[in-house]
Amino acid sequence: MDLDIDGARGVLAAQSFSVLLGTRLTIFGDGRSELVVPVNDDLKQQHGFVHGGVVSYLADLGLAFAAGSVLGDVLTAEFKLNLMRPAGGDAIVARGHVLHAGKRQATCRCDVFARDGAEEVLCAVALGTVVKVGGAGAA
Amino acid sequence: MDLDIDGARGVLAAQSFSVLLGTRLTIFGDGRSELVVPVNDDLKQQHGFVHGGVVSYLADLGLAFAAGSVLGDVLTAEFKLNLMRPAGGDAIVARGHVLHAGKRQATCRCDVFARDGAEEVLCAVALGTVVKVGGAGAA
Amino acid sequence: MDLDIDGARGVLAAQSFSVLLGTRLTIFGDGRSELVVPVNDDLKQQHGFVHGGVVSYLADLGLAFAAGSVLGDVLTAEFKLNLMRPAGGDAIVARGHVLHAGKRQATCRCDVFARDGAEEVLCAVALGTVVKVGGAGAA
Amino acid sequence: MDLDIDGARGVLAAQSFSVLLGTRLTIFGDGRSELVVPVNDDLKQQHGFVHGGVVSYLADLGLAFAAGSVLGDVLTAEFKLNLMRPAGGDAIVARGHVLHAGKRQATCRCDVFARDGAEEVLCAVALGTVVKVGGAGAA
Repeated sequence: MDLDIDGARGVLAAQSFSVLLGTRLTIFGDGRSELVVPVNDDLKQQHGFVHGGVVSYLADLGLAFAAGSVLGDVLTAEFKLNLMRPAGGDAIVARGHVLHAGKRQATCRCDVFARDGAEEVLCAVALGTVVKVGGAGAA
Repeated sequence: MDLDIDGARGVLAAQSFSVLLGTRLTIFGDGRSELVVPVNDDLKQQHGFVHGGVVSYLADLGLAFAAGSVLGDVLTAEFKLNLMRPAGGDAIVARGHVLHAGKRQATCRCDVFARDGAEEVLCAVALGTVVKVGGAGAA
Repeated sequence: MDLDIDGARGVLAAQSFSVLLGTRLTIFGDGRSELVVPVNDDLKQQHGFVHGGVVSYLADLGLAFAAGSVLGDVLTAEFKLNLMRPAGGDAIVARGHVLHAGKRQATCRCDVFARDGAEEVLCAVALGTVVKVGGAGAA
Repeated sequence: MDLDIDGARGVLAAQSFSVLLGTRLTIFGDGRSELVVPVNDDLKQQHGFVHGGVVSYLADLGLAFAAGSVLGDVLTAEFKLNLMRPAGGDAIVARGHVLHAGKRQATCRCDVFARDGAEEVLCAVALGTVVKVGGAGAA
């Protein structure tokens, strides 16, 4: 609650793993989030695409920050990810939104795009549950 | 096919993201995998625990390498992850195994443990589908 | 391939379980599906709501028929369902759509609504993979 | 809490949908469940196998009753199901167990088998979250 985009950026800045990956929070509020990871050579898998682990990390964050804009301090309890296309380009973009929120948890969707210049391709989709810290579950 | 643990370690070494995280492959074969990420200060979230993104990355790898020991070159098509406990300690360990394998894809489970010295605590569980490269789907 | 709504209704009529539940196919084509189950007293759980098993059944069908409109004869390989609200009212409605389709499989979403007269409430959401029969996987 | 197998069978008997399907609860307690649906001609899909909707229904119940043996009155909040083989034979058997339980929710696994005489084949696996009624989430 009462978490605005500056507060949410503070949370992201307090995640050393997100600092390592260079993640930026570009939209936060009203049950929506957008996060961007610039692609560099440290984020690849063996075929030269962005590693699925980067995609799943960002999908998780997209779910969590969408829920966090409604619930405050949160943790992802569970999510499912479908990896539909290899992710290339110059950035990975996750857009999350809340489908349903109660007092203690929210069900959220997140779409993950590979961005190449002005073009975006949907490469993965996620569905999951995010819980308020001090609520049910933990991640 | 015909991928032994040295070949599989070569795949891991060809993933720059896995090199960045320091991931090691400790078991590979007969539909089973074990992978370890040593915890360091770059892998944390805002509460000081290992970032969920590291856990999901390793769960994905545990599924993929278990399947890879049966199918050869693979990609994770989809998986679901339940994050049950915060992950602390000095290493994260993922153990994957194949539940059912066809010619082109395998259904796999993976358990992820937080290791602290000689103790391990189950912190997350995953279930997913891994496909042979050149088979159906892509990740 | 080459499956129109009449053909798809024939598939549904050949499913004795769907006949038992009284399921109707109301939209089929272009990667989209809509199916309806009229609620009756045989479909309830212990609190008087529609049984989660009916919701999961219809979510699965919504995914499969959306994919079937693109791929022809299909089986659901896997799906995930989030049950967000108890389902009441006089009918359950599932609307599926294809997010990405290859030659042998499709990734689909499905929303499940509880309909009460002219009102609908979103009660569950699903995400899953549907495979062409003779393709990878089986259900 | 304080729910024994007779109480749990009472819950099942109060589910008209479970009565319609003829579901029996054969094991209940200590975080474990076993449920059986006898196969009959009303439970099939178009290829003569047991309908995936019956499998998903029973997987959901297996998860919920495993959790219910620890938490009391519960609802499934979410689950994921992988359908690995077509289900034939004379009965479908689901075996659920709790992986981790808190005060308000439990993470559970469930394996679903097709039974043909004395033989069983694993045909589907599920992973999900079950919440205590009056706890977080609802289904």
